[in-house]
Amino acid sequence: APATAPKACNLTEFVGTANGHTVGLVIANVDPLLHEQMKIDKKYRSIGIVGGRTGAGPQIFAADEAVKATNSEVVLIELPRDTEGGGGHGSLIVFGAEDVSDARRAVEVTLSELDRTFGDVYGTPAGHLEFQYTARASFALNKAFGAPIGQAFGITVGCPAAIGVLMADTATKAATVVPVAYATPGNGGTSYSNEAIFMFSGDSGAVRQAIRAARDVGKQVLGTLDPAPVASATKPYI
Amino acid sequence: APATAPKACNLTEFVGTANGHTVGLVIANVDPLLHEQMKIDKKYRSIGIVGGRTGAGPQIFAADEAVKATNSEVVLIELPRDTEGGGGHGSLIVFGAEDVSDARRAVEVTLSELDRTFGDVYGTPAGHLEFQYTARASFALNKAFGAPIGQAFGITVGCPAAIGVLMADTATKAATVVPVAYATPGNGGTSYSNEAIFMFSGDSGAVRQAIRAARDVGKQVLGTLDPAPVASATKPYI
Amino acid sequence: APATAPKACNLTEFVGTANGHTVGLVIANVDPLLHEQMKIDKKYRSIGIVGGRTGAGPQIFAADEAVKATNSEVVLIELPRDTEGGGGHGSLIVFGAEDVSDARRAVEVTLSELDRTFGDVYGTPAGHLEFQYTARASFALNKAFGAPIGQAFGITVGCPAAIGVLMADTATKAATVVPVAYATPGNGGTSYSNEAIFMFSGDSGAVRQAIRAARDVGKQVLGTLDPAPVASATKPYI
Repeated sequence: APATAPKACNLTEFVGTANGHTVGLVIANVDPLLHEQMKIDKKYRSIGIVGGRTGAGPQIFAADEAVKATNSEVVLIELPRDTEGGGGHGSLIVFGAEDVSDARRAVEVTLSELDRTFGDVYGTPAGHLEFQYTARASFALNKAFGAPIGQAFGITVGCPAAIGVLMADTATKAATVVPVAYATPGNGGTSYSNEAIFMFSGDSGAVRQAIRAARDVGKQVLGTLDPAPVASATKPYI
Repeated sequence: APATAPKACNLTEFVGTANGHTVGLVIANVDPLLHEQMKIDKKYRSIGIVGGRTGAGPQIFAADEAVKATNSEVVLIELPRDTEGGGGHGSLIVFGAEDVSDARRAVEVTLSELDRTFGDVYGTPAGHLEFQYTARASFALNKAFGAPIGQAFGITVGCPAAIGVLMADTATKAATVVPVAYATPGNGGTSYSNEAIFMFSGDSGAVRQAIRAARDVGKQVLGTLDPAPVASATKPYI
Repeated sequence: APATAPKACNLTEFVGTANGHTVGLVIANVDPLLHEQMKIDKKYRSIGIVGGRTGAGPQIFAADEAVKATNSEVVLIELPRDTEGGGGHGSLIVFGAEDVSDARRAVEVTLSELDRTFGDVYGTPAGHLEFQYTARASFALNKAFGAPIGQAFGITVGCPAAIGVLMADTATKAATVVPVAYATPGNGGTSYSNEAIFMFSGDSGAVRQAIRAARDVGKQVLGTLDPAPVASATKPYI
């Protein structure tokens, strides 16, 4: 209903919004004074900006599709401690491009992928689970997680972190995967979120099998902490 | 109604409360064992303490007025990651003074300024914006943000951080200001808050003009994420 | 009512749940690939995992009882910034054991102690207070806080942090205690929580006396910020 819908925005810089209180913006010519503060390559006059209150994995995996599809580079990925009272992260992603149309397109692709990449996010009042998968990691996933470029890559995330530790064990036992990194609240790249995150590559079938096994276990454990259903934020895709 | 009002407090150390779940306290003679743990100058026997759940900018700009008005020094400014489920900071500010009346007065001034300094804080369920301005920065703003003492100084803050990045660009383009610092969730002084913060000095008119332009843009973008009005927490002052 | 109760869990790895959205898990044989990522001593094939959304002190003091009572070691204690929108921490604790029955028992003991160790946690919408005491600190408290092993040890925690600073002063003045550490939002071991934490040892009576004096002051101050009663989460034990 128009009475309660968010306001429209006619700013040139506004691209759109998506799940997780995510907003997409573009700046055609970053002011030189700000450009210097941002410490990004001078050749990128244009930047695309994607930031959300909830979710880092969904936005980063979506941004990975954007760098594959456009002539842009991910120049910044930062993970605030957020999720609006939840135990995870928000996100700030900046794309650099020499042409504003590329920066805008990168943001558009990212926003359009978020409905899919929120598909294996499962939340209850007690915590959340997240799973992401790609058949072929590109530069955003390499920058954020050290994913080997061109390989299948997946992550399992559990909150409270204890669940994530168990899911990491389940994943490694379920299929032949190669650990890329392991993060906990005080180590490995979280911003003190209450998550344990396991990142791994391998052949495509193995990565998916590992994720599915971890997902099955994680949903059972998260379900013991709160009676709410452990339901997908959109529609599972893995 | 008395039945639901917060309790009164007869402790000598209690000074008062204010916006943002902020409390003001004073200790006439800090215990030597604690004094050593706090690592503050031994000459300050008395300390004033101001801490809030929501807001760092409002308390820091208020504290700047307090150091101008009293014989006290700001010996500690720390920014917890808080805002009670929001994407920003809380605050802990400690004033040191040789005389308890100065410490108490610094706290009183800070608390009394908070109604004003919350005036350009705008929140919705999706995020928040904050703007602060002073015609003449003093030692609290120098300590917290590196503001040049005696000069006009302002900050723009946007959450989710993407909005803050855009507002920084808007501010630099709107007037001739001198960037002092730029902070994002993982760099520059935030405590992993979901904010981008731009800090700048310049002549008084330019600083205000930059803030007003950024505020106009920020309100439009924040309004796209949630239907709630983007309203001042008290009354705009800039 | 069964319709709203959390789901049961038949996983071998599931031990139980407790206050603070805390879950306890055990892994009999950690996968070697994960074991390496976790960087824990190879002799510990089995691990116990305890993690909660709310509370670090309660889980750490409970884990201290577990290491006293079992043949296990605390190999990891990390403090996410959590409490589900509150100003404090959650927790992730990992026990290592050579035998799975020891790891499981450590988790069971920890979970069983949580009802007690949440007894001196007091929360309102404006903040929280926490107090913990043990007559004899063991290895978990030594690892987490540097508590001298075998001695009486206590902590006082206040949120917003300003209250915690005052309580630290009250505690040191109330009895002859030995400061072990002092933590604030940006220093000393918090994960940017909005807390000031004071940790101290001493003779058993002095530690309790210091805590009780701080508790009395803290409850009065926290009560000024919100009309909600400053009530124990379970039942006070100190």
